[in-house]
Amino acid sequence: MEAIKIIETARYAPSKIVTNDDLSQIMDTSDEWITERTGIRQRHISEGENTSDLAIKVGQSLLAKSGYQLDQVDLIIVATMSPDAYTPATAAIVQGELGASHAVAFDISAACSGFMYAMMVAKQLLQMPTVNRAMVIGAEVLSKIIDWQDRTTAVLFGDGAGGVLLEKDASATSILLGQNWQTFGDQHDALSAGYTKVANQFPGPVTDLKPFYMDGHGVYRFATHQVPKSIITAANQASIDVDAIDHFILHQANARIIRSVAKRLHVSQEKFPININEYGNTSAASEPILLSECVDQGIVKRGDIIALSGFGGGLTVGTMIIKY
Amino acid sequence: MEAIKIIETARYAPSKIVTNDDLSQIMDTSDEWITERTGIRQRHISEGENTSDLAIKVGQSLLAKSGYQLDQVDLIIVATMSPDAYTPATAAIVQGELGASHAVAFDISAACSGFMYAMMVAKQLLQMPTVNRAMVIGAEVLSKIIDWQDRTTAVLFGDGAGGVLLEKDASATSILLGQNWQTFGDQHDALSAGYTKVANQFPGPVTDLKPFYMDGHGVYRFATHQVPKSIITAANQASIDVDAIDHFILHQANARIIRSVAKRLHVSQEKFPININEYGNTSAASEPILLSECVDQGIVKRGDIIALSGFGGGLTVGTMIIKY
Repeated sequence: MEAIKIIETARYAPSKIVTNDDLSQIMDTSDEWITERTGIRQRHISEGENTSDLAIKVGQSLLAKSGYQLDQVDLIIVATMSPDAYTPATAAIVQGELGASHAVAFDISAACSGFMYAMMVAKQLLQMPTVNRAMVIGAEVLSKIIDWQDRTTAVLFGDGAGGVLLEKDASATSILLGQNWQTFGDQHDALSAGYTKVANQFPGPVTDLKPFYMDGHGVYRFATHQVPKSIITAANQASIDVDAIDHFILHQANARIIRSVAKRLHVSQEKFPININEYGNTSAASEPILLSECVDQGIVKRGDIIALSGFGGGLTVGTMIIKY
Repeated sequence: MEAIKIIETARYAPSKIVTNDDLSQIMDTSDEWITERTGIRQRHISEGENTSDLAIKVGQSLLAKSGYQLDQVDLIIVATMSPDAYTPATAAIVQGELGASHAVAFDISAACSGFMYAMMVAKQLLQMPTVNRAMVIGAEVLSKIIDWQDRTTAVLFGDGAGGVLLEKDASATSILLGQNWQTFGDQHDALSAGYTKVANQFPGPVTDLKPFYMDGHGVYRFATHQVPKSIITAANQASIDVDAIDHFILHQANARIIRSVAKRLHVSQEKFPININEYGNTSAASEPILLSECVDQGIVKRGDIIALSGFGGGLTVGTMIIKY
């Protein structure tokens, strides 16, 4: 197994900010209600940039920060549940717009666990002799599929992108210490967005996408049970104690979920950085955005052990224990 | 590198058939015009089954034919450009409905090369100690995003699903002899479907999907040049002559493309099985449907060397040379 290293991290979010107070102007909600239940105070909302536009910004930033050339990138995976289109894949647009013509590009769809699933796929593809460097980007313009009339879901989501540049590492230190990923397809109805019906399709018109639906309690119960389990399983595989993990970079779906996970793991809340207050739930983009912020702020340092954990639609969960 | 074997193949298509004559009732076209330019005589069109429904049928068939138990399946990848939803992934629905609760499940989006890309990803994930068996399914209900008013694209596409069950093979024979995959994102505009705009999204309504657009000449030129190249590159990597390949299972986009590829490779047309006449272009489903038919009809036999090659939106191309 080839060792792999995170060379760089990067993030990007649209400049327009929608606060809770802004939302309370168009729906029956309030800053107090949203903040108390979710920890969210604002979210970035695209005013025209599509998912590929955000991902391209992340790709450009990864290249600029790393100093790598375009032809050194062999693989681009975009994890997204809000692609620009059914085809081309968002990753293909990113590849084309970056000019990384050497890279193979495709999208992975695993909702809020998408970034973790894409990382696991990238790690395995980096074992191929022809793949030495990979960009893994989580990018979402969830505002495309938010029903702004539904206050139970509209207040939760935001737009953004984050990513990492991975490289085979000739040194002995592997980024990967342990991992766990699971899918609970029997609960696939608990969280959905963008359903396309087939009824009367031929020769009828193209049907609309259905906006977000979420069984909030079901997803909360799922996350607070399965995420600690997944982290413990991955830590066991890494042969380390959960206490040895320095930072828990969790998918930012709800501050209460994160606090509950910390409690169940008997780990200090301080090891769980949170930025949901600024971004809301950005699905596949949330872990790489948070990781990138933590690296830039000096919270995550080289040599630290981090647990990256995603969870959500599918239902899915995915954890990687990494020596950064 | 662990050797991998295709244990079983399976396929499913909706029962409703739409002939060229049927189409000529609703648009200005004719059986002669369509057949001459594309080789398509009919296509299967869903009357309510969504993409996951077709994929589930394939999954059930793979289990029945192989005699494997549900808990022996470790991974389910669905390649699709017409998923049921943005979330959950179609593969998660398949996992849930099959009851394969042990399997990790996610979708890959790489359009008509999706099945090939998914096969390459599955092959690498099968190198993991925890992944011994994988279902790779290509499934499409393209009729969801066909504009039945646009005769230049509506006549081309159909619905269907096909898949394979892969297993680590303790014997020395690997399925994989060589491979090649490439993305040409600079041509991402040449073939698109299901674009979702972002304009005036907040706090406006959810926007519709855009139906198919294709630069027919551009895609034709791309395919007739890049597919032979990709096959030659993969054959070189496999250290075999193109002449040593027994069957070329190509993505069924257009019978003229297939004939042109045969010509450029100086290989007999007879080595290129064709079923586009019955199915039309089923995108990611087309190679596994054709492979499954060839296996069931005794055309592809154990020990034969086959080239599987997909191409399309992205633009993308992917080839695997396999000892079946």
